[in-house]
Amino acid sequence: MASETEEGSIRHGGDLGEACRLFPQAPGPWIDLSTGINPIPYPWPALEASAFTRLPAPADLAALEAAAAGAYGAKPDHVVAAPGTQALIDLIPRLRPPGRVAVVGPTYAEHAASWARAGHAVAAVPDLTTAADVVVVVNPNNPDGRVVPARDLAAVAARLAARGGWLVVDEAFADLEPVESLCGAPPPGGLVLRSFGKTYGLAGVRLGFAVAGEPLIGRLRRAIGPWAVSGPAIAIGRCALADAVWRREAAARRGRDAARLDGLLDAAGGRIVGGTVLFRTVDIRDASGLFARLGRAGIFVRRFEAAPGRLRFGLPPDEAAWTRLAAALRGA
Amino acid sequence: MASETEEGSIRHGGDLGEACRLFPQAPGPWIDLSTGINPIPYPWPALEASAFTRLPAPADLAALEAAAAGAYGAKPDHVVAAPGTQALIDLIPRLRPPGRVAVVGPTYAEHAASWARAGHAVAAVPDLTTAADVVVVVNPNNPDGRVVPARDLAAVAARLAARGGWLVVDEAFADLEPVESLCGAPPPGGLVLRSFGKTYGLAGVRLGFAVAGEPLIGRLRRAIGPWAVSGPAIAIGRCALADAVWRREAAARRGRDAARLDGLLDAAGGRIVGGTVLFRTVDIRDASGLFARLGRAGIFVRRFEAAPGRLRFGLPPDEAAWTRLAAALRGA
Repeated sequence: MASETEEGSIRHGGDLGEACRLFPQAPGPWIDLSTGINPIPYPWPALEASAFTRLPAPADLAALEAAAAGAYGAKPDHVVAAPGTQALIDLIPRLRPPGRVAVVGPTYAEHAASWARAGHAVAAVPDLTTAADVVVVVNPNNPDGRVVPARDLAAVAARLAARGGWLVVDEAFADLEPVESLCGAPPPGGLVLRSFGKTYGLAGVRLGFAVAGEPLIGRLRRAIGPWAVSGPAIAIGRCALADAVWRREAAARRGRDAARLDGLLDAAGGRIVGGTVLFRTVDIRDASGLFARLGRAGIFVRRFEAAPGRLRFGLPPDEAAWTRLAAALRGA
Repeated sequence: MASETEEGSIRHGGDLGEACRLFPQAPGPWIDLSTGINPIPYPWPALEASAFTRLPAPADLAALEAAAAGAYGAKPDHVVAAPGTQALIDLIPRLRPPGRVAVVGPTYAEHAASWARAGHAVAAVPDLTTAADVVVVVNPNNPDGRVVPARDLAAVAARLAARGGWLVVDEAFADLEPVESLCGAPPPGGLVLRSFGKTYGLAGVRLGFAVAGEPLIGRLRRAIGPWAVSGPAIAIGRCALADAVWRREAAARRGRDAARLDGLLDAAGGRIVGGTVLFRTVDIRDASGLFARLGRAGIFVRRFEAAPGRLRFGLPPDEAAWTRLAAALRGA
């Protein structure tokens, strides 16, 4: 989740430049818990020079999309790659005339901002609705982890599609969760987003996917145009998305990490609101004081302007970071 | 230049998969002369792991845009980075309501296609005009190398801007040419595109820039959104764009290569239509026969459906390739 600042830009996690400005005296190295990115990255392969020098070949892009289809249980024809899910969030609102958009939230703020930028009338709604032209839902939701059953989503998509509407389901955090995905059978008017960087701990690579049936996926493919995804992203993505063993082990290990984090936050007096195996969200007394105490200890977490009693914690990357986090939470 | 196929998709250079399908018996390795990409890439630096693992930081993106501003003689505030110029070509037509667009051509076909996809009425025009809402010109032009003087462009931009119009100047091939750029003082309503991959021989990295004054550049920056450019592209681009010495030497060396290529093409009976230091375009007798003869020799060049007597040649990467090209042109 991100929050709108006064200037209309959105504050995001993951910017250690901001951490350094806020806490210039903090001891290094920074422990960045401000995102929901897997802190243990996929061991990406060495890249051939041609990944950098040559225009990405259509056949290689097709192989990447086939690997993504395998990972997501989708048909290869239903998958289109983009340079990050954010690129799709920016693009999709420009593919239809301005209308009424309902974003189920609070959630990741770029959805509402992007639809508004493209001229749509955007409303935040607490639950799934059909009273809009487009409904956006993040599933599981960021930051509270709420999950909407696939059958409810399919029913809403069908009602929207009957009058030309869309249901956008952002499954950015679905990879490592026991969540029913819409990727296997995207309903008419349904558009699913999947993120690569969060699951594989490779957010710098910029890779994400849309999954939808025809004619939507064809429109997206044409709008995205050729060579949208870089050679390094194609090479790394093909390898990682085909590795079901790594993904299974990552889900198990990050699940244990998330439980361990819950233990620390609970001991610190936090009430776990929810999350996924890649982040935990807590309501906690004096959240802004804790944010500052952690910051002074070189630990950067996520706060929310619209929910000042709430903090979100990503997973520590190693034992040294766990130890520092435990000490900082104890106030030691 | 690319050409529209019957299905509405555009055929581009640089796809050796197509070369293999057309000439399955050709001896390897393929010599790809079908693009205008520098065959001698910038010696890119080793990448830190954080370029792959971390979300690209706003400060690093700003440093990249500052390096680009230095290379293009622009103000840093006037530069915005994108994952390839093509991404900008796809985006810009969606930033204004459908209108009349004139594309000075024949030229790179994605411009007209992208404006048409976004609902605009597109006309191909032989020369600069002000009889449109938006005028697009590639300068120097691909494939014929034609250059339009900066003062003519500024005059057209001013007349278009007076009624809310835009002039899009694609300077994809300007880096290594003695061309007057609009980047230093983009006129109101003027939008300049610069390509990274062609000059630096790193087309797989996906990096390009738009240069414009306010308010246009602000609108573009918001539309592109956060994290559009990958960590590897930021790291490599910062280094390469700051290297004026390499750029100067590349211009001199590719200039000598282009003259040498002209000599071979002239000896083969070709009439040089024009080009840049990264490609040469010739009208030549039995161009389709020559395309096939070169293909059977493992040399892939660019042909044009709309100009069947014309071929475009990129630069050979090394002496072995020069020797094979000379032999194939002689018909040996």
